Amino acid sequence: MENFVLHNQTKILFGKGMVAQLGTECRYFGKRALLVYGMESIKKSGLYAEITGLLADQDIAIIDHGGVVSNPLLSHVREGIKKAKDNKVDLIIAVGGGSVIDSAKAISCGTCVEHDVWKFFTGKKSIKQTLPLVCVLTLAAAGSEMNGGMVITHDEKRHKFGTGNNLLNPKTSILDPSLTLTVPKDYTVYGAIDAIAHICEFYFTTKIKAPVQERFMEGLILSIIDSCDRVILNLNDYEARSDLMWCTTLALNGWTAAGLGLVGFPMHMIEHTLSAHYNVAHGAGLSVIMPGWMASMVARQPEKFNQFSERIFKHSNTDLLKNGRAGVSSLKEIFSQWQAPVTLAELDIPESALAELARESLPLAKNWRMNDYSEKIIHEILEGCL
Amino acid sequence: MENFVLHNQTKILFGKGMVAQLGTECRYFGKRALLVYGMESIKKSGLYAEITGLLADQDIAIIDHGGVVSNPLLSHVREGIKKAKDNKVDLIIAVGGGSVIDSAKAISCGTCVEHDVWKFFTGKKSIKQTLPLVCVLTLAAAGSEMNGGMVITHDEKRHKFGTGNNLLNPKTSILDPSLTLTVPKDYTVYGAIDAIAHICEFYFTTKIKAPVQERFMEGLILSIIDSCDRVILNLNDYEARSDLMWCTTLALNGWTAAGLGLVGFPMHMIEHTLSAHYNVAHGAGLSVIMPGWMASMVARQPEKFNQFSERIFKHSNTDLLKNGRAGVSSLKEIFSQWQAPVTLAELDIPESALAELARESLPLAKNWRMNDYSEKIIHEILEGCL
Repeated sequence: MENFVLHNQTKILFGKGMVAQLGTECRYFGKRALLVYGMESIKKSGLYAEITGLLADQDIAIIDHGGVVSNPLLSHVREGIKKAKDNKVDLIIAVGGGSVIDSAKAISCGTCVEHDVWKFFTGKKSIKQTLPLVCVLTLAAAGSEMNGGMVITHDEKRHKFGTGNNLLNPKTSILDPSLTLTVPKDYTVYGAIDAIAHICEFYFTTKIKAPVQERFMEGLILSIIDSCDRVILNLNDYEARSDLMWCTTLALNGWTAAGLGLVGFPMHMIEHTLSAHYNVAHGAGLSVIMPGWMASMVARQPEKFNQFSERIFKHSNTDLLKNGRAGVSSLKEIFSQWQAPVTLAELDIPESALAELARESLPLAKNWRMNDYSEKIIHEILEGCL
Repeated sequence: MENFVLHNQTKILFGKGMVAQLGTECRYFGKRALLVYGMESIKKSGLYAEITGLLADQDIAIIDHGGVVSNPLLSHVREGIKKAKDNKVDLIIAVGGGSVIDSAKAISCGTCVEHDVWKFFTGKKSIKQTLPLVCVLTLAAAGSEMNGGMVITHDEKRHKFGTGNNLLNPKTSILDPSLTLTVPKDYTVYGAIDAIAHICEFYFTTKIKAPVQERFMEGLILSIIDSCDRVILNLNDYEARSDLMWCTTLALNGWTAAGLGLVGFPMHMIEHTLSAHYNVAHGAGLSVIMPGWMASMVARQPEKFNQFSERIFKHSNTDLLKNGRAGVSSLKEIFSQWQAPVTLAELDIPESALAELARESLPLAKNWRMNDYSEKIIHEILEGCL
């Protein structure tokens, strides 16, 4: 494997009732917190009241910053930064899924500088300081709760850009699977697919032979499929929700990637363009792009796809290429069984849109150092997703 | 799975040449370091000269404390504590395998108190403070480089006791697989077996159904078997050494155990008594005890052993018990192929010793809260190892 440095300092509190510890986890970081969240659902569920009560018990003042949307927007991040500066907050608290946590991360670094936060995303500035961030996760999907990555969408340009820094790792993340029991089937599935995509990006784009990490990733994919199946059977299955939640965190917390060297995010690259322009759910976009991208790659890495097929789906065709393709088909079939879209048509994206999508994906390819992706190649992959 | 808190703050620097960063990793912690190591081998290999040079470059003064033996002794720990106090050291640096790192951990907490360090091991005192610890690992085995556990042997009483605390986690551990290229075949194998035992203790003693962690552990066992096989074929295979080293760290760094609830260490319990009384290598002792313990447990957890057999060795006998036993036999066979001992006779331990070994194991069972182990049960397990 490649040399690596691994230092993930996020403290995880996992399980039912762990939210009760929010106040004591936050009090070390100060007395004034910006509370970032999404829509009204956490007020309806009672979680908002519980959290504000816990913070009040520790004499932590709250500056409210709700309203994060999925594919979270730069304009809302900028508003959050202004509030955080005006109120001299000591810490940020995020209550939600990946969109909320990513917004909170952007606010946590943007508050520490005079320049516009977007410069971190375009690579014009580097993150050197952040406010401490504490998260309460309510959606098993993005993995942002235990890593230093974030993705934000520029409102006007419709650029969905990501960046990362160890300093963005949350100090503490509270993962209570019972908070996800109310997530409907479609968004549960999208979360599972997002996590599978995170793993497959690493698994198929690394140029390094890394047998230990490969086994770990294969185990996670098997566990995601199994636990998502169980959740679909019974949305109230706490154990299945727990397994799925922990898998989605592990899929992108750096543990599987340590030793893989430089990896790419080609599926996310194309999907980010898709969801920035059509506002489809991220997991729904990935459900379409992933099988298409994988099908286009089988011939380039027949051994790797063969291993994937063998170990995940027990396919045993001795023709490597055929066996690899069978694995991709099986994955696509699972997404279909989960009633996730697997074609652009199902997302109402017409063939005429492909040229623009391919063109708009290129800046992301450059951002993520994936120089082997031309407009033509991206167009071909998209054609395979029609 | 069970609720858990996971907060492993050890920073890992993994790969060839990473030792060069030792000085910069240490300088944040102070100017006076106690350097703990084993025998003369690191002087012969040139590692000692490299390390002292790197520390000198950062103006870090070294107080030398070599001479740690395997099954490390309390008397030597006490000497180290005296040196650390007399010289007012700011940090501890460990260069070696698990014995050296465990000794350094004991010194790091023992230096911060007035009472004798052994009280931490008997449970009479709790660890509340430690000196920072930085490790350079030279043996892939114990996993101590990324956890808060330590095991020390009382010279006179021959009690080999372990204890743990998050504060004992090393600040930084440098894992350079090339430092293990000179480890001979037998000790390489013992390291692999030690790691398999760490995983199997968790895997078979948890009372919690934890499918995600089970897949992770199964992947690790498969990877250890595979990488150890490759190392045996060519002791200079850097990639195989890398895979094995990373597996042995992951086997006991808390990642697989998170969510498993209370686990036991029955194999280590019996082996610690064995090696405290007969001074056999820890991995050699485990190689004998593990298959014996597992064979005695198949009937109690037929489903778990069946899963182990299926997923690790692809056994597919439809009789659960037979299939489970086949897996245990396969593991024992691998240890034999690796030329590790699999019977007490091979360790020159006579049947007449069993009664005393069983009796001496009991305090450990109590220490580790394994109240279902009586002298009789331990005796029966040992009989199965003859």
